[in-house]
Amino acid sequence: MRLSITCLVIYMDKRIDPWGASDISDYDKLMREFGIEPFSNVIKSVPDVHKYMRRGIIYGHRDFSRIAQAMKNKAPFVMLTGLMPSGKMHLGHKMVADEMIYFQENGAHCYVCVADVEAYLTRGMDTKVMRELAINEYLLNYIALGLKPKKCRFYFQSDFSNEYNVISKYFSKKVTFNELKAIYGGESLTTGKIVSALTQVADILYPQIDMGKPTPTVVPVGTDQDPHLRLTRDIASRFKKEYNFILPSSTYHRYQKGLSGSKMSSSDPTTYIALTDSRKEVEGKVKRALTGGRDTLDEQKKLGGSPLKCTVFELYKFHFMDDDKELSKVFDECRSGNVMCGECKGRCIELIVGFLLKHQAKREKARKVLDKFLK
Amino acid sequence: MRLSITCLVIYMDKRIDPWGASDISDYDKLMREFGIEPFSNVIKSVPDVHKYMRRGIIYGHRDFSRIAQAMKNKAPFVMLTGLMPSGKMHLGHKMVADEMIYFQENGAHCYVCVADVEAYLTRGMDTKVMRELAINEYLLNYIALGLKPKKCRFYFQSDFSNEYNVISKYFSKKVTFNELKAIYGGESLTTGKIVSALTQVADILYPQIDMGKPTPTVVPVGTDQDPHLRLTRDIASRFKKEYNFILPSSTYHRYQKGLSGSKMSSSDPTTYIALTDSRKEVEGKVKRALTGGRDTLDEQKKLGGSPLKCTVFELYKFHFMDDDKELSKVFDECRSGNVMCGECKGRCIELIVGFLLKHQAKREKARKVLDKFLK
Repeated sequence: MRLSITCLVIYMDKRIDPWGASDISDYDKLMREFGIEPFSNVIKSVPDVHKYMRRGIIYGHRDFSRIAQAMKNKAPFVMLTGLMPSGKMHLGHKMVADEMIYFQENGAHCYVCVADVEAYLTRGMDTKVMRELAINEYLLNYIALGLKPKKCRFYFQSDFSNEYNVISKYFSKKVTFNELKAIYGGESLTTGKIVSALTQVADILYPQIDMGKPTPTVVPVGTDQDPHLRLTRDIASRFKKEYNFILPSSTYHRYQKGLSGSKMSSSDPTTYIALTDSRKEVEGKVKRALTGGRDTLDEQKKLGGSPLKCTVFELYKFHFMDDDKELSKVFDECRSGNVMCGECKGRCIELIVGFLLKHQAKREKARKVLDKFLK
Repeated sequence: MRLSITCLVIYMDKRIDPWGASDISDYDKLMREFGIEPFSNVIKSVPDVHKYMRRGIIYGHRDFSRIAQAMKNKAPFVMLTGLMPSGKMHLGHKMVADEMIYFQENGAHCYVCVADVEAYLTRGMDTKVMRELAINEYLLNYIALGLKPKKCRFYFQSDFSNEYNVISKYFSKKVTFNELKAIYGGESLTTGKIVSALTQVADILYPQIDMGKPTPTVVPVGTDQDPHLRLTRDIASRFKKEYNFILPSSTYHRYQKGLSGSKMSSSDPTTYIALTDSRKEVEGKVKRALTGGRDTLDEQKKLGGSPLKCTVFELYKFHFMDDDKELSKVFDECRSGNVMCGECKGRCIELIVGFLLKHQAKREKARKVLDKFLK
């Protein structure tokens, strides 16, 4: 049974471009070229294995054994993640929040960065609008999903400590254009992107200064963010003498497909389910979602469906079915032609709506503790 | 008499390179090419004309009428200057301090920036050493020279306000590599220099934010610093909508020659007189200083000396003779062959030592008010 699940990791992000996002087709090549290790190599040492790890959604890592060890020994470690607020928070964002909360529950000091300087520099987004969105959309949902204020620094790139700002300037001393070009592509490199990249490097390394000593740090990212990690590790090693940084660890997750089968996009609500969606919206979106069904019911009963192509199966797998056996059953029932798409979608809708109702109630309560994160 | 003084402005800095420093040979061409206006165009509107202005030491400006008007109307204006602490403070630095204090006495809000981030990024200087030097060498001398704590912000680039740091990041959005290359030279541009340049732009523009409204700002600089001013004015005009900056004004001074006749250099004590020098050091340095004397005494008596080539005449002109008539007399006595170099040097030594004795006493008293600048 386990096999049928772990073999699902096929679809991946291809182009390494941290400023855009796209699909991956050659996951092995990526690992070989950039030195990302398969997560399966380290999973046995993880004390509390998350479903994303078991299911190959978190498929790769760098130096994660350092984090696993800290988790095991209850030693201090840091989790850093960033958000770029752009529209409603949806299930794609929830995945990142799930990882963040998992690490916090396992002892991490959480640094949650609103990348508003980066968003302004690379996308021209308005910082005031972002601030409002980050607090009343993202932070509120994080709290409802389980993020606790203890050992958590929720901050804006545009409003953090002096030392954070200054190290990002110092880092510029030990990085060349050619390194930045190799990462971002020569032609698309701009002054703004350089400053933005250096700010991100400070996001990842500053927590070690804030913690008062070199501290293992994990950054859960998608593959497209790996260039930032490589840059950060290079810079960290060049400032060994000044700051004695421990090179940051990272985990790599694959992205959930959008409901139309292609990329989930904040600018196209039909591709995602938002955490604020109503039953009616969920029903409409799931009913139109791309599945792995056949052209006719008869054909599907005879040949079975293709859950690997199905965006509804992804909903179960990423979010709405924690039990692996149950998920395997859904997979097998589809492949065998025993359950048709309509029935399967109906079941999924009920799970989603059940989750959202509870979540939305928690979200309202969360307003009361917002201040604890913003002090 | 006045003519003989104002025509002294011949020697000028040539290569426009803010990271180095060198001599100028074609001053008119500089003005034509870069749009610096002759200071003589605006001097009539200045309520309190400084000797550097009268003597053509401050020879050029951009938009200074805006500052003259503020001085006249006692309206708020800002003076921004920076220092990069490298060794002992000498007469070359005193000139900048004189300008700073002149503007403060004429109503300016003074922002005095220790360019420690820039010095680290472009010269690899140690920030702790710089901090110590900036306070106990430079600031102490500024106070002894007359700088007052009221309406004065003495700050370190590495330790200032959040908004200051963040605007320097935002500025990166609206400047291209080609613009920076045109200023610094394509090949010598580095990531560190970009960050350093953007930090300097923030130094010049941030005071307007700190003042709470767009405020005329003057930056007294040497010609080699003009590229930074041009960059700052370009960026300021691009952020009109966001910040409504008034384009900064600037004045341009020529540099005092070193005692050997070439550039004054912090790394060569024989080229300068430090504000902490003893009588013995002053005597030794002035006696060895290059003059405009002839090969023999007889020849000099007959043909006269060349004060324009004389570094001792520069000492009088820049620092130790406030009265123009007296200075013209020194000039004429030299040219006519009536006073020989030995006598002239002896007189200058006494003026210097007299100044330094008083200054050094003031310096000791200044320690008591250091804190008022550092709070």
